[in-house]
Amino acid sequence: MNLRELETPCLVLDLAKVKKNIEHFHQHIRSLAVDFRPHVKTVKNIELTTMALMRKGSGIMVSTMKEAEYFFNHGIRDIVYGVGIAPVKLRRVADLINRGAGLTLILDSVEQVEFVSAAAQQFSITIPVLIEIDCDGHRSGISSNDPLLIDIANLISRKKGVELRGIVTHAGESYNCRSIGCIKRLAGVERDTAVRCAESLRREGFACPVVSVGSTPTAKFVDDLEGVTEVRAGVFVFYDLFMAGLGVCRIEDIAISVLVSVIGHQKVRGWIITDGGWMSLSRDRGTSSQRVDRGYGLVCSIEGKPLDDMIVYSANQEHGIIGSSSSDKSILEMFPVGTMLRILPNHACATSAMHDRYYVVDGSTEVVCVWHRMNGW
Amino acid sequence: MNLRELETPCLVLDLAKVKKNIEHFHQHIRSLAVDFRPHVKTVKNIELTTMALMRKGSGIMVSTMKEAEYFFNHGIRDIVYGVGIAPVKLRRVADLINRGAGLTLILDSVEQVEFVSAAAQQFSITIPVLIEIDCDGHRSGISSNDPLLIDIANLISRKKGVELRGIVTHAGESYNCRSIGCIKRLAGVERDTAVRCAESLRREGFACPVVSVGSTPTAKFVDDLEGVTEVRAGVFVFYDLFMAGLGVCRIEDIAISVLVSVIGHQKVRGWIITDGGWMSLSRDRGTSSQRVDRGYGLVCSIEGKPLDDMIVYSANQEHGIIGSSSSDKSILEMFPVGTMLRILPNHACATSAMHDRYYVVDGSTEVVCVWHRMNGW
Repeated sequence: MNLRELETPCLVLDLAKVKKNIEHFHQHIRSLAVDFRPHVKTVKNIELTTMALMRKGSGIMVSTMKEAEYFFNHGIRDIVYGVGIAPVKLRRVADLINRGAGLTLILDSVEQVEFVSAAAQQFSITIPVLIEIDCDGHRSGISSNDPLLIDIANLISRKKGVELRGIVTHAGESYNCRSIGCIKRLAGVERDTAVRCAESLRREGFACPVVSVGSTPTAKFVDDLEGVTEVRAGVFVFYDLFMAGLGVCRIEDIAISVLVSVIGHQKVRGWIITDGGWMSLSRDRGTSSQRVDRGYGLVCSIEGKPLDDMIVYSANQEHGIIGSSSSDKSILEMFPVGTMLRILPNHACATSAMHDRYYVVDGSTEVVCVWHRMNGW
Repeated sequence: MNLRELETPCLVLDLAKVKKNIEHFHQHIRSLAVDFRPHVKTVKNIELTTMALMRKGSGIMVSTMKEAEYFFNHGIRDIVYGVGIAPVKLRRVADLINRGAGLTLILDSVEQVEFVSAAAQQFSITIPVLIEIDCDGHRSGISSNDPLLIDIANLISRKKGVELRGIVTHAGESYNCRSIGCIKRLAGVERDTAVRCAESLRREGFACPVVSVGSTPTAKFVDDLEGVTEVRAGVFVFYDLFMAGLGVCRIEDIAISVLVSVIGHQKVRGWIITDGGWMSLSRDRGTSSQRVDRGYGLVCSIEGKPLDDMIVYSANQEHGIIGSSSSDKSILEMFPVGTMLRILPNHACATSAMHDRYYVVDGSTEVVCVWHRMNGW
């Protein structure tokens, strides 16, 4: 089957690029002498996750309990559920642990320790937990100088059914950097904060075997992870225009794209109308805050070659409007109705989430296989 | 089952509000003495579509061929596929017509007439089509003064297997209005343009039995549709914060919300962290261009009461950050970890698209049923 025979819109994955992205990332991680835990919220697929693991038997981070169940059912045992735990999810947590999963939760409050301990006792299990640390004011977690860190560790040690495994942090602010220097600086802050918290815990007698850091930008540019035990990243498998804008990858490294058909033109305005709207591209406009705004995505030929001055500048539910910065209106004649194009996405996680399968090519337009993608909760 | 027993995040539908929204809308449409064709891209569900039809046997507009197939399989025969046709979709079009669907396509180019006719002959069917008219420069369609309109009609009459049913237009620019006056003016332009095009066709001897207009804002405020045969709308079933910002509905009319759990706090910043990120809310930030920016959504109690100064001001994949304009930090204590909240969405179509089911309540927090929602292409 060839891409030309597919119905549009659909999600295309270039395996040649995925392999290269993973190989380069693994090479770098190996040089840091730490474990690697891919965050699978980007790919949500077992074939890609198996490729992203650096060694057989190593673990993953997930963003939903449904991911945890899917990947456990596909043979992955070591799973960290990477969103602060809520009471309504504890029954599914207990089910997975009872089935043999090495499932670890994260938390940053006294209340969470209380209800996790209560559930562990109710279901007669032990639940391993990591304390979430805030290294950059981005989102969740305890500040490194907050006495709450030790209070929570003490509470965990007194409570039945909860076992402290260590700490976890995420330099989410690296997404707002405008230079590699900034990313490197935040990578240093992420590492230093994590190590400082682990040392605080050890000074109080807690073992803290796990010191986990990570984000695709910081993991890519960090050159020293002394004191850290594992690093996490997810987007690196696919990359996207946002990561290219950050300087984390090149446009030609982006491994996913949305295949669309031209369905019309507005000649006076120089528009090409396609069937690739926000339903297939996602509403993500991440690059709007970057130096180069790529609209809803950068347009490529069906072979995947970027048509550099063409972007999806506006999108409705099932309509994309492609505009060109070139004033040459004859560009429309190059793309008659029925022409297929590929759109590189702003954000790999958001765009992939709109699709339930990957049409896999391997450096050409031949579809070599179709891989399932799980979504939902 | 009560909302309190559901796992978060999930999509909640308030049937009491849906019934009222549909009843009020039907009342208005009846006063206009035209047919009503709901656009089902918002609901993507048969129970809701059955309620939205004004009379048994009337038709719908769909945004994907998968919707066309789903609704035909559920007994709806009269279907307009509302996105300009691309060659790759003609096999599924032919299959549906061969199975007895009254499926109509829309087009706005000579090329489309050519390939639709070729497919009709290949599959031994007749394909009814509407010519798409551009009434406001929003997206696709032929300008009313473009001689292409008559050229296409002439071509259709010469070609085998294609049957001209009339014209269709959509006042998409009404979404950019900042006053009811503006919406009424665009509704007038939408009607006048449609009627003018139908008259041009009739002057040339084409019957043009269908004159179809519509968008939720213009359909809601138009008071005269003389010359129009049918009006379309979709979002009115649910409404959303964007429509409320436009003045098309009230906040209390919004029938869908995302149920989320509080998973943490950042006390110093006054943040409440929830498990409702953009994966459940969508990336849609429609209200950012309106007078009142509602972030990623307006926060309500589990009973659905808006907490007026609280919005989801930032979202990651599975994390929502709720902020309050109030400087009173004690607000955090009102929402301890585990508290459930409901988030009203910017855009009903985009938020619903992130979910595969509706948890239906009927004016209370009791879940009366669960309805499937179809997605994909």
